[in-house]
Amino acid sequence: MEDKDKITCAVLGYGYWGPNMARNFFQNSKFILKSISDVSEARLKKAKIDYPSIQVYQDSMEIINDPEIEAVDICTPVFAHYKLAKAALEAGKHVLIEKPMTSTVQEAEHLIRLAKENNLKIMVDHTFLFTGAVRAMKELIDSGEIGDIYYFDSVRVNLGLFQHDINVLWDLAPHDISIMTYLLEVDPVSVTALGADHIGNGLENVAYLYVDFGNELIGHVHVNWLAPVKLRTTLIGGSKKMIVYDDTEPSEKVRVYDKGVEIVNGDVDNIYKTLVQYRTGDMYAPKIDNTEALRLEVDTFYDYIRNGTKINCDGEAGLTVVKILEASQQSIKNQGVNIKL
Amino acid sequence: MEDKDKITCAVLGYGYWGPNMARNFFQNSKFILKSISDVSEARLKKAKIDYPSIQVYQDSMEIINDPEIEAVDICTPVFAHYKLAKAALEAGKHVLIEKPMTSTVQEAEHLIRLAKENNLKIMVDHTFLFTGAVRAMKELIDSGEIGDIYYFDSVRVNLGLFQHDINVLWDLAPHDISIMTYLLEVDPVSVTALGADHIGNGLENVAYLYVDFGNELIGHVHVNWLAPVKLRTTLIGGSKKMIVYDDTEPSEKVRVYDKGVEIVNGDVDNIYKTLVQYRTGDMYAPKIDNTEALRLEVDTFYDYIRNGTKINCDGEAGLTVVKILEASQQSIKNQGVNIKL
Amino acid sequence: MEDKDKITCAVLGYGYWGPNMARNFFQNSKFILKSISDVSEARLKKAKIDYPSIQVYQDSMEIINDPEIEAVDICTPVFAHYKLAKAALEAGKHVLIEKPMTSTVQEAEHLIRLAKENNLKIMVDHTFLFTGAVRAMKELIDSGEIGDIYYFDSVRVNLGLFQHDINVLWDLAPHDISIMTYLLEVDPVSVTALGADHIGNGLENVAYLYVDFGNELIGHVHVNWLAPVKLRTTLIGGSKKMIVYDDTEPSEKVRVYDKGVEIVNGDVDNIYKTLVQYRTGDMYAPKIDNTEALRLEVDTFYDYIRNGTKINCDGEAGLTVVKILEASQQSIKNQGVNIKL
Amino acid sequence: MEDKDKITCAVLGYGYWGPNMARNFFQNSKFILKSISDVSEARLKKAKIDYPSIQVYQDSMEIINDPEIEAVDICTPVFAHYKLAKAALEAGKHVLIEKPMTSTVQEAEHLIRLAKENNLKIMVDHTFLFTGAVRAMKELIDSGEIGDIYYFDSVRVNLGLFQHDINVLWDLAPHDISIMTYLLEVDPVSVTALGADHIGNGLENVAYLYVDFGNELIGHVHVNWLAPVKLRTTLIGGSKKMIVYDDTEPSEKVRVYDKGVEIVNGDVDNIYKTLVQYRTGDMYAPKIDNTEALRLEVDTFYDYIRNGTKINCDGEAGLTVVKILEASQQSIKNQGVNIKL
Repeated sequence: MEDKDKITCAVLGYGYWGPNMARNFFQNSKFILKSISDVSEARLKKAKIDYPSIQVYQDSMEIINDPEIEAVDICTPVFAHYKLAKAALEAGKHVLIEKPMTSTVQEAEHLIRLAKENNLKIMVDHTFLFTGAVRAMKELIDSGEIGDIYYFDSVRVNLGLFQHDINVLWDLAPHDISIMTYLLEVDPVSVTALGADHIGNGLENVAYLYVDFGNELIGHVHVNWLAPVKLRTTLIGGSKKMIVYDDTEPSEKVRVYDKGVEIVNGDVDNIYKTLVQYRTGDMYAPKIDNTEALRLEVDTFYDYIRNGTKINCDGEAGLTVVKILEASQQSIKNQGVNIKL
Repeated sequence: MEDKDKITCAVLGYGYWGPNMARNFFQNSKFILKSISDVSEARLKKAKIDYPSIQVYQDSMEIINDPEIEAVDICTPVFAHYKLAKAALEAGKHVLIEKPMTSTVQEAEHLIRLAKENNLKIMVDHTFLFTGAVRAMKELIDSGEIGDIYYFDSVRVNLGLFQHDINVLWDLAPHDISIMTYLLEVDPVSVTALGADHIGNGLENVAYLYVDFGNELIGHVHVNWLAPVKLRTTLIGGSKKMIVYDDTEPSEKVRVYDKGVEIVNGDVDNIYKTLVQYRTGDMYAPKIDNTEALRLEVDTFYDYIRNGTKINCDGEAGLTVVKILEASQQSIKNQGVNIKL
Repeated sequence: MEDKDKITCAVLGYGYWGPNMARNFFQNSKFILKSISDVSEARLKKAKIDYPSIQVYQDSMEIINDPEIEAVDICTPVFAHYKLAKAALEAGKHVLIEKPMTSTVQEAEHLIRLAKENNLKIMVDHTFLFTGAVRAMKELIDSGEIGDIYYFDSVRVNLGLFQHDINVLWDLAPHDISIMTYLLEVDPVSVTALGADHIGNGLENVAYLYVDFGNELIGHVHVNWLAPVKLRTTLIGGSKKMIVYDDTEPSEKVRVYDKGVEIVNGDVDNIYKTLVQYRTGDMYAPKIDNTEALRLEVDTFYDYIRNGTKINCDGEAGLTVVKILEASQQSIKNQGVNIKL
Repeated sequence: MEDKDKITCAVLGYGYWGPNMARNFFQNSKFILKSISDVSEARLKKAKIDYPSIQVYQDSMEIINDPEIEAVDICTPVFAHYKLAKAALEAGKHVLIEKPMTSTVQEAEHLIRLAKENNLKIMVDHTFLFTGAVRAMKELIDSGEIGDIYYFDSVRVNLGLFQHDINVLWDLAPHDISIMTYLLEVDPVSVTALGADHIGNGLENVAYLYVDFGNELIGHVHVNWLAPVKLRTTLIGGSKKMIVYDDTEPSEKVRVYDKGVEIVNGDVDNIYKTLVQYRTGDMYAPKIDNTEALRLEVDTFYDYIRNGTKINCDGEAGLTVVKILEASQQSIKNQGVNIKL
């Protein structure tokens, strides 16, 4: 690829996630990673060691004002997403934003408007959508093999890094919510969320999120920073088949069970067997593509910018996740009152 | 033991659970199992084959009116619990009732009153309290080894038998609620429950139950009749240690993790590591006593009747479970409105 | 079925295995279980409690001499198999013998000859051949889906009951050997076995058995009475697919992996990738029939006696197992010298 | 550390393993990684991209003849180990050799002699000895908690990379053999090995290795390149406790079971319960240190060279592994004849 076709980009924020993104932009022949910024001296030093050839700045604005930069990837803490994305869009740059897109629905909507006005692209880093496992489940569901979806139940717990600016809901749930909304493609109707803060810093470390999608289709997410074991298990119940997605499995992450129930005549003589017939068949685990998700994601970002290829993690997708998070936050702070969306 | 010291008893209801109880009363030298009743001819026939020496009746009242019978075990569907228990107590018999104790709080309270007035005993069949695993967890918690309990999270899902008179909450959750209230020994403050009915018979087949115990102590139960795999996992988080109780494990059902967090000074330079210090030590699985739960339970029922030994599944314990179930039912039918207890 | 078509039978030996067989003969409408024998007063008492209607004897000969008895099931310790089977055959009775068939090849051959001469049937209780899992594997292999079998590797270890008359090889390996020879249907060429006795009673409590079937088809069995965990894992490698059979799994006991290798041109530039191409596809777990193995086995015994239906656990099959065991014993006592069969 | 105290080193061979070693030497402040060699242009190019500052050579002799180089790490295929190590030692350089040390016992002995004569150090890259799991097991065994060791049983199977110069025994078994000899610290008496080649290139892809350590202490290793699943399970039976080491576990890799047997009086009345009493207590999983093994190994190499600190993977340890491999090879090529060591 000729240099003129490549996209010169920068990574803003070099904490936990930034290095992963920087590596992928650096290794991707369609991008030229020019610069990295971070407020921390220590992390800038690390960036310099990792990539001697790259410019580093403590002030992100120096990058945003660099006319050579065509796109920026915002990997800072959530509270800084909006300010940096806004500045970048106003400076005419395409934007990739770490999840969750913003801290409020209003901010997300403003960024989408800004992008449209300036004919720029916003993509949100919903990494899991690029994993082989989630892509496999999407194919299974779209093919109709699972039938009508009944529920989506996700558990994401472990002894996790307590964030000091956001609670466990904003930290972990974006993964589950982005997967759920991507797979279901149904607009959520309302949200109920509950949780607790056991550290006493006002940030819930355990939370339960219930999403009503209407027509008895429900979603549930359990996120927990204070669990003794790492669980990453999603159950998806369908009218024809059911899926168990265990992301901690080294292989066979996705298992498809030929199980279900159908209504039949009840058994008047046995009050315990009634009205329902059970079907149990084979289980199978489709082969999962192991391509690194971030590599696919960076390629997708390129196609989105250069060719306007439709993607499933654009600003609107990011907005939907923030809507659910904001409503959940409102619900959790009001003892689980139901919030319409 | 001389016959005069033995308790002559009967089992009312010989469907799914009755045969287990009958076997234990039959094998227990402290009891004389005299009769069994069931509305179903077919099941009475089975009872006769299993125990040729025992009298069987289609009408439970024949047993309740038998002056020789000192105690009855009610193993019928829930809706019949109150009527039979009331009749038995009025006939001067001690009562063991399958869980849940009754369909309403009012019924449970009336039975408790009746028993007190007639100086009789009511015990509720909270079977799990008699398992080695639950007893081991109770000892761990009471010893202080776990510290203050933060949360109790229980998942009980599989492709389950759809009941035609009660929903999944009334069918499965009594197990988790009875274990939870037994282990925590804290009065619940309020309940929020949500669920869905995918069969269209008005009975939820999946439900989520959230119990607020105050002071950031929370309980959560996920019950599901429509899951592709059988999960029986309970997480208990404490200030000192945490427990994982997996009832599907053939051995090592209870695992104790020396894991936890403590507040320390934040790291100003790293926004991602903050305020909290993590501790990870050994894990161990205490040896679990494998005595059959029902055998212990039947022995306990005898001691309760003959010696008034204090038990943890008396009428009051059964009432607490029914209170939570009734409130949950109310919540679930009102889109998860929070119900004070 | 009319009584005249039923087979009147008896169970000789009521220790560990006898009660299971007695229950299945008792519940099976094609058989009439008339009597049970055991040298132990205690165990005879237990038999009497379990089946009040049945006659019990301390001397098996009283049963063998009972003209009404048409078939006997020998569930005694191994050393007594030959003597009792011989007497039963000479008395004109069909015989079902617990595995292993006999203590020596000579004994097994003599019993087969006796049966043929008296036109009677011998069946050996290779229980696993009647499980849904083993039957499913047999179908998979016979269908050609697995391709040519390369190896059969079985591990059967746990903290097991030390026998006082036989070593772990004679106690546990008959299961694996009978499954292996049934699935492979190839005559073994030679045997090498090694083991150790850590108790000092002259009986190995851990043993490794290697069976050469020729043409690079190999079998290996690891049996161990002194293992901390219960493992029941069999790996079967084929030219097209591979099987993992884990008998400790509650469901999905048999998993079929679409994995394999093929020879291709080597990569001259990479000495580490060479000559071989790897194929990895889906995994699936066929639904397993859960019918109790012993029920099927007892039905099979009936058909074998009444209709001469061909079975896969006749005297010849039992003899093959004993041949391998005897050769293994010889090998193990001679530091693993290779024994031709 | 001052540069004069640092060790200038080189990595010979940049295929599968070389890059891991290069990274660790590069990141370790006690070493100065000066150069890398490999016969493959492609791999040299990769080395240059990974470490722009480092010199690369196609001919290892250019490095061996570089007076600045004080130590070399040989990461080439096995057949080249001896030639390169010999040259390096003759050129006065310390040597770290990838496992297995050499292709023959004679070669290994010669290298040891050469090193002694030239007062140089040889260390063999038995990586697993530096993992937290193996170090934890060593502590457990040395502390006496496990008691007398009865057996060491290791399974290392998966769909593995077929080597074109060595069989599965020489490829995988060095890991198990080095762990086994390190933990047991007993001289092996004899070896019996069997295996098969299903590809037809003369190299076994499945092998069983049995090591007799005398006094009923036995070792067994099952290595397999053609297995459908990845298994890394080691059972260690002791007179007091038993260990299960599962290297595929993300955490709790080492589990200690308080299980065992003791001889007691037999039960005359029950032929099936005899002579032995069983003990089953708690299980626990000690916390495992997660320091990268190679980092520890490189530090150890430094201390060995500079301070002569005693190590457990010196030339003698490497020689022991080669002795067992050579004997196994001899056994496997002679239908498992027992080879004295």
